[in-house]
Amino acid sequence: MTDLAPSAPRQRVLSGMRPTGALHLGHYHGALKNWVRLQSAYDCFFFVADWHALTTHYQHREGLEQSVYDMVVDWLAAGIDPAQATLFIQSRMPEHAELFTLLAMSTPSSWLERMPSYKDMVAENRELATYGFLGYPLLQAADILIYKAAFVPVGEDQAPHVEVTREVARRFNHLYAPLLPEPQALLTETSRLPGLDGRKMSKTYGNAIAMRDAPEVVAEKVRRMQTDPQRVRRGDPGEPERCPVWALHKVYADSDTRAWVESGCRSAGIGCLDCKQPLIDAIHDEQAPWRARADELLADPKKVHWIVEVGTERARAVARKTLREVRGAMGLDY
Amino acid sequence: MTDLAPSAPRQRVLSGMRPTGALHLGHYHGALKNWVRLQSAYDCFFFVADWHALTTHYQHREGLEQSVYDMVVDWLAAGIDPAQATLFIQSRMPEHAELFTLLAMSTPSSWLERMPSYKDMVAENRELATYGFLGYPLLQAADILIYKAAFVPVGEDQAPHVEVTREVARRFNHLYAPLLPEPQALLTETSRLPGLDGRKMSKTYGNAIAMRDAPEVVAEKVRRMQTDPQRVRRGDPGEPERCPVWALHKVYADSDTRAWVESGCRSAGIGCLDCKQPLIDAIHDEQAPWRARADELLADPKKVHWIVEVGTERARAVARKTLREVRGAMGLDY
Repeated sequence: MTDLAPSAPRQRVLSGMRPTGALHLGHYHGALKNWVRLQSAYDCFFFVADWHALTTHYQHREGLEQSVYDMVVDWLAAGIDPAQATLFIQSRMPEHAELFTLLAMSTPSSWLERMPSYKDMVAENRELATYGFLGYPLLQAADILIYKAAFVPVGEDQAPHVEVTREVARRFNHLYAPLLPEPQALLTETSRLPGLDGRKMSKTYGNAIAMRDAPEVVAEKVRRMQTDPQRVRRGDPGEPERCPVWALHKVYADSDTRAWVESGCRSAGIGCLDCKQPLIDAIHDEQAPWRARADELLADPKKVHWIVEVGTERARAVARKTLREVRGAMGLDY
Repeated sequence: MTDLAPSAPRQRVLSGMRPTGALHLGHYHGALKNWVRLQSAYDCFFFVADWHALTTHYQHREGLEQSVYDMVVDWLAAGIDPAQATLFIQSRMPEHAELFTLLAMSTPSSWLERMPSYKDMVAENRELATYGFLGYPLLQAADILIYKAAFVPVGEDQAPHVEVTREVARRFNHLYAPLLPEPQALLTETSRLPGLDGRKMSKTYGNAIAMRDAPEVVAEKVRRMQTDPQRVRRGDPGEPERCPVWALHKVYADSDTRAWVESGCRSAGIGCLDCKQPLIDAIHDEQAPWRARADELLADPKKVHWIVEVGTERARAVARKTLREVRGAMGLDY
């Protein structure tokens, strides 16, 4: 973006996140950190993909509202600035459903059936063989195209979905009128944050540290982490590459600390609790500004609702405009 | 309905028609006549199914608006009374698209794939293998369930669609909350009106008489009809069962006229033009009140728009209420 004149309008970025409730450090490092970086360079639209959550979890809907707002608080805590980015909730936008319905008419089912995500997940779980889950990439296409987004930040596994969105746009532009720009995938180096057990950090695995876990909870979780299984006694030398704490040091520690850990571990110069302390401190430091912002927001719960309200209406103005153009191109503007 | 106390609220009937433009006598006898009969006994919601038209004709959208309003004028001409029935346009109701999207999440694709209409038509025309056409019965289910309709008047070929609607409602009621009544098919003796050539009357076959064809056009069309091919000369005796005019007499003539035709034809006592005259007269008589009402409406085009406007807002009030309940049951009411 550096070569753009200051007066050029910012290009739009769209991204959504399923409402999984309170986010953990994996969400932050995998996506949210990137959102915070993008918001000053692009006109960012970030949304809670609650309809998408229903495609795979239509039977579990309890606590959805809580999950939605816990997540939005985490976005704001992480530094998403509602003055720069537009935050909204998908299920509050019937416009997405209307565009989804209209685009469905000219989208071959085969485009959706061949998506790897669909085939794999249905093979694992027949309950997912629903019309809605099949249409998931098309609903996503509607989410993106209704804002004429130029870029969609995605991990590599999501690239086929952006490709389908481009095909859907091309077909619409060919059949009706050249209205819908083809978005580009903004491939981001997604850092897969390891969890407390070395596997990918995930709520499902029970190996996560929540963004807003209290300092003493974080300290306790890290202290209880398994370390190199071959370092049984304090005096045994260890090997960092066998230790999940080291995997987290690679993300959190500076080079001095990393050197201290490597030599201290291999020489048995430091104990595992010694080694864990700088990690605990680094996570505390990372969390401190989040906690400060979250405390402020939680002291005034209406504020978060208001931010979402304003964002939703801002998004709606854009969505309605596109929808008017789409209806017109399809001959439905009466 | 006769056993209901006068104070009982009328049960709701929902029916839609694709916007095919000016309607013909086949539409009147096949559906519209029945609608007129239903409107005083039920709380009727009649809608222009313009999204449904896109499921099979997404590539032909020119003149859609004209088709929509020509059709609504024909409804009103036929005697649909906007003071009794609610008339509206599907594409003006994003609520249907939203319910369609929500129901999609819990509807197995297999329910839709097995619909005979889908399998047959896709086998004939691969262009129809779209996600939207596959979802056609589900969109129809949303159309029906959003008004909690008790009855859906259908011909026999449409009965499987009502059955899917019932399944969709049952599944929703089981998963979330008992909100959506299962509608019943109101099987109507559909009279398949024969066209000018004896095949089913259809715009596609070019064998139709429009509801608002001018009297001289009707006369000309009937006079040009082929009759019994074995009755070559005026003096040859004919056989009514081989004659498409007779097929129409069966609908339009009283028993005296029918007896006069049968004996006159078989004895060559009357000529084919003689035989056609009472049919021309009967169609003229049927059309006269339609024409009077249509002329009045066309003298004030805003009136039809206003009727649709009022009907759409009336329908929207009902649709919004159901949607609020559905969102609540699914945990999406935030």
